[in-house]
Amino acid sequence: MFSQIEVTVAGLNGAGAVKCSRDVVVVPDAALEDAAGKGPYDAIVLPGGLKGAESFGQSATVKTLLTDQQKAGRVIGAICAAPAVSLPPHGIGEGKKVTCYPALKDRLDAGKYTYQDQKVVEDGELITSQGPGTAFDFGLALVKKLVDSEKSASVAKAMLL
Amino acid sequence: MFSQIEVTVAGLNGAGAVKCSRDVVVVPDAALEDAAGKGPYDAIVLPGGLKGAESFGQSATVKTLLTDQQKAGRVIGAICAAPAVSLPPHGIGEGKKVTCYPALKDRLDAGKYTYQDQKVVEDGELITSQGPGTAFDFGLALVKKLVDSEKSASVAKAMLL
Repeated sequence: MFSQIEVTVAGLNGAGAVKCSRDVVVVPDAALEDAAGKGPYDAIVLPGGLKGAESFGQSATVKTLLTDQQKAGRVIGAICAAPAVSLPPHGIGEGKKVTCYPALKDRLDAGKYTYQDQKVVEDGELITSQGPGTAFDFGLALVKKLVDSEKSASVAKAMLL
Repeated sequence: MFSQIEVTVAGLNGAGAVKCSRDVVVVPDAALEDAAGKGPYDAIVLPGGLKGAESFGQSATVKTLLTDQQKAGRVIGAICAAPAVSLPPHGIGEGKKVTCYPALKDRLDAGKYTYQDQKVVEDGELITSQGPGTAFDFGLALVKKLVDSEKSASVAKAMLL
């Protein structure tokens, strides 16, 4: 249980500014290589955006992080393109129920994943979600998982959700 | 009518990185002083976050921009703290129906503004909204105003809203 959740935004290719899929430019808190050495983390969460999700799917650092996270039974979250594009190349979440951006669901090998058309799907320590419009539900599911239902409800209320 | 909306994110205190109210760090596309010289803009939109909204309310540049925008009959948008904290000091939107983050509604002089407890309030060219949980509604209302209902509906669908 935590009263607050401390978040580290990690940059895949260093600590420099990252232009996101809709041209917003975000500065990470740390380079992924540096952040990886400061784990373990209670949760590792992958954002969407197709190009970024593809880069996660090709990264050896991401593979190591997620594989260790999964072995340790810790939370992994992924939304939008990430469940379909970032997890399968690393063999993460196989055998589990997942969701993703619906147009990308065919990237999930049906023999390895069970796709569910829901805003958020939680199967054990894997939490997946569908896209921008389900991002609040996804975030609140993570708060509920990492803290509790009361915290999730109070955050939702303060955000006017 | 536009097929795309081009957005300039302007930094109040220059073009350097800005730490937002929840510690996300965003890099503006331009300094506000530079962006101001490239107008007029079809819409000027003020984000929330209490400290940032207070800074907007104290800025002579923001006052000039919003006053000119209002005189020209162009769109002004404000969400969360901004309608209650950024607009009144500059005399923007007086006489209009507005909404804001509900806990801040007493900052709106009832003799000058009519508060409405709705997710989005549109009165002429002034569009206001309540907070994080109403941000998608706010954005879609701006798309509808600047483009049309079809574009707003197609964006909502693609975002899974």
